[in-house]
Amino acid sequence: MIHNFNAGPSHLPAAVVEEAAEAIRDFQHSGLSLLEISHRGPYFLPVIEEARELARELMGLEEDFEVLFLHGGGRTQFMQTAMNLLDSDREAAYVDTGTWASKAIEEARLFGNVRVIASSADKQYSYIPKGFAIPEQAAYLHLTTNNTIYGTQWHDIPDCAAPLVADMSSDILSRAIDFNRFGLIYAGAQKNIGAAGVTLVAVRKSILGKIHRAIPSMMDYRIHIKNESIYNTPPVFAIYTCLLVLRWLKAQGGVSAVEKVNTRKATLLYREIDENPLFQGTAAVEDRSQMNVCFVMNDKVLEKEFAEFCAKEGMYGIKGHRSVGGFRVSLYNAVTEESTQAMVDAMKHFAGVKA
Amino acid sequence: MIHNFNAGPSHLPAAVVEEAAEAIRDFQHSGLSLLEISHRGPYFLPVIEEARELARELMGLEEDFEVLFLHGGGRTQFMQTAMNLLDSDREAAYVDTGTWASKAIEEARLFGNVRVIASSADKQYSYIPKGFAIPEQAAYLHLTTNNTIYGTQWHDIPDCAAPLVADMSSDILSRAIDFNRFGLIYAGAQKNIGAAGVTLVAVRKSILGKIHRAIPSMMDYRIHIKNESIYNTPPVFAIYTCLLVLRWLKAQGGVSAVEKVNTRKATLLYREIDENPLFQGTAAVEDRSQMNVCFVMNDKVLEKEFAEFCAKEGMYGIKGHRSVGGFRVSLYNAVTEESTQAMVDAMKHFAGVKA
Repeated sequence: MIHNFNAGPSHLPAAVVEEAAEAIRDFQHSGLSLLEISHRGPYFLPVIEEARELARELMGLEEDFEVLFLHGGGRTQFMQTAMNLLDSDREAAYVDTGTWASKAIEEARLFGNVRVIASSADKQYSYIPKGFAIPEQAAYLHLTTNNTIYGTQWHDIPDCAAPLVADMSSDILSRAIDFNRFGLIYAGAQKNIGAAGVTLVAVRKSILGKIHRAIPSMMDYRIHIKNESIYNTPPVFAIYTCLLVLRWLKAQGGVSAVEKVNTRKATLLYREIDENPLFQGTAAVEDRSQMNVCFVMNDKVLEKEFAEFCAKEGMYGIKGHRSVGGFRVSLYNAVTEESTQAMVDAMKHFAGVKA
Repeated sequence: MIHNFNAGPSHLPAAVVEEAAEAIRDFQHSGLSLLEISHRGPYFLPVIEEARELARELMGLEEDFEVLFLHGGGRTQFMQTAMNLLDSDREAAYVDTGTWASKAIEEARLFGNVRVIASSADKQYSYIPKGFAIPEQAAYLHLTTNNTIYGTQWHDIPDCAAPLVADMSSDILSRAIDFNRFGLIYAGAQKNIGAAGVTLVAVRKSILGKIHRAIPSMMDYRIHIKNESIYNTPPVFAIYTCLLVLRWLKAQGGVSAVEKVNTRKATLLYREIDENPLFQGTAAVEDRSQMNVCFVMNDKVLEKEFAEFCAKEGMYGIKGHRSVGGFRVSLYNAVTEESTQAMVDAMKHFAGVKA
């Protein structure tokens, strides 16, 4: 039995995997593979329509929002958001909470002025900045709601007059937050909503079209909206996998229901980290992520042995990001309480051997 | 039995479909789905390495080339090529041979000067322009080697001092041409090399880095080259499907071998179009595409009935592009001679009934 805690691409519900494989073989008894059908034909159109509708429903989005499934991954959104929302003479506000936030800042600077209004770089991004002022004239405020590499998460989304733009790649649909407080939300699918190769974007139509730049077609949200998310050949298989995951999420009871499970999983694992003398969490306790649990060992020398022990016990993908080391256990929606318990058991067992 | 002549996404070899489905279930007996593994781990790295190497081998590319598998589809390349190769005060030469060439021209205009040095728009893009002059100072010359919608194909690639940039989305690896004559080649994978959601780019390192524009990271070929085509989470499944198709192509004997089959398929179908009194090809005979065979019926009134007849006979995806009407039978590498014969038989049969 493998327990998959990979940070992304990550674990998917077993039924989703099975159904995705079957769609490759024979899509809905059509005699054709999902890979061979037209993206503008009667097989695929209902797929993308249902996926967009279901994402809207699960997020509880207002009418003003459009949901798109785009090429390019979260990193493409770093440039695309700025390209669409930041005029070259305006200023956008960013909070720097880690590697991905920094990369978003770097890309936005190519399009206009960027003010980093708060940063946790001073303490290796181990906390979420608080009490900062948001410039009233900002074109938008950009947040990374969950920081995959450092295991921190925004538990209180700040109030803001400007549109809130959020990279939710690693915590989208994992907790009941008011998505309508945002102007634009983006998320690479390969963590909580599907397979690598597609990015979900939920954007308010009312914040678009307010800048002067000529935007290349593939980067223009308005063009994708007008074309109902099929401006060009979309990543068909990745979108179908998203649909399967969204259906699964709805069957679980939606976002509020999985949030309860996610809280139980995170609580279980953080409790072990806090109680077990071998381990130590790296994120500030009040900012701990429910999705990515980062920790180190008090005795660094033991880390290799513990990693090998875990590998033998079937724990997969728990190595910390190459930039920070230690361990990272990702508890995305599809990771079960059983797997989380298995991880805790491994930590207990290892501590017992070492005691 | 379904004969899939779809223009893209299109037919894949049965063994590829089977192996792709199995990889979703259990990737290489890892106990994990291909959708759940790390793109930087020991399962996926050999996949992308082999895919890049195999594409290089099958195209016979010189050392100067790098092969990338990028997000975004061919349409992203319309902007990305210009962004990387065209300074705002320089001029690029484009030949307008159809809808996709026109769209490429439109995107390039956002980045510099574009001179359309030849066009076949005067005759509904039914031929390939010849005998035009190429400006010596052009930053590059852009061609669309095969025009999916109109069924025309460049059989003679012009000589040119400037780098040749080619959209080969619909005929890449279908015929033995000297790929080393080009500076940059791009191709959406969903026709001849895999599944929708990834684009193959082969680019000469020596033509990059010669412009002054600041390029967003995701658009900068040099960044993707430096990161060995894994700058961000790549479209893992789509790339794996490409690898399976490239392996299949090699097992067929490579590009020269499939070209022979492609020529036989195209000859068979065009002969029927020319001999059968009901049908008429739409492309100039000397510019006919081996990949997309476009035709209309001499009596338009029969087109609906013929379409229904073909549907009953298992012919899938033969409707002409929505912008031109009529019929389009795509004969990409994976389409068999048996399927092509079945199409010809259907045309003969229908003519017999109507005689």
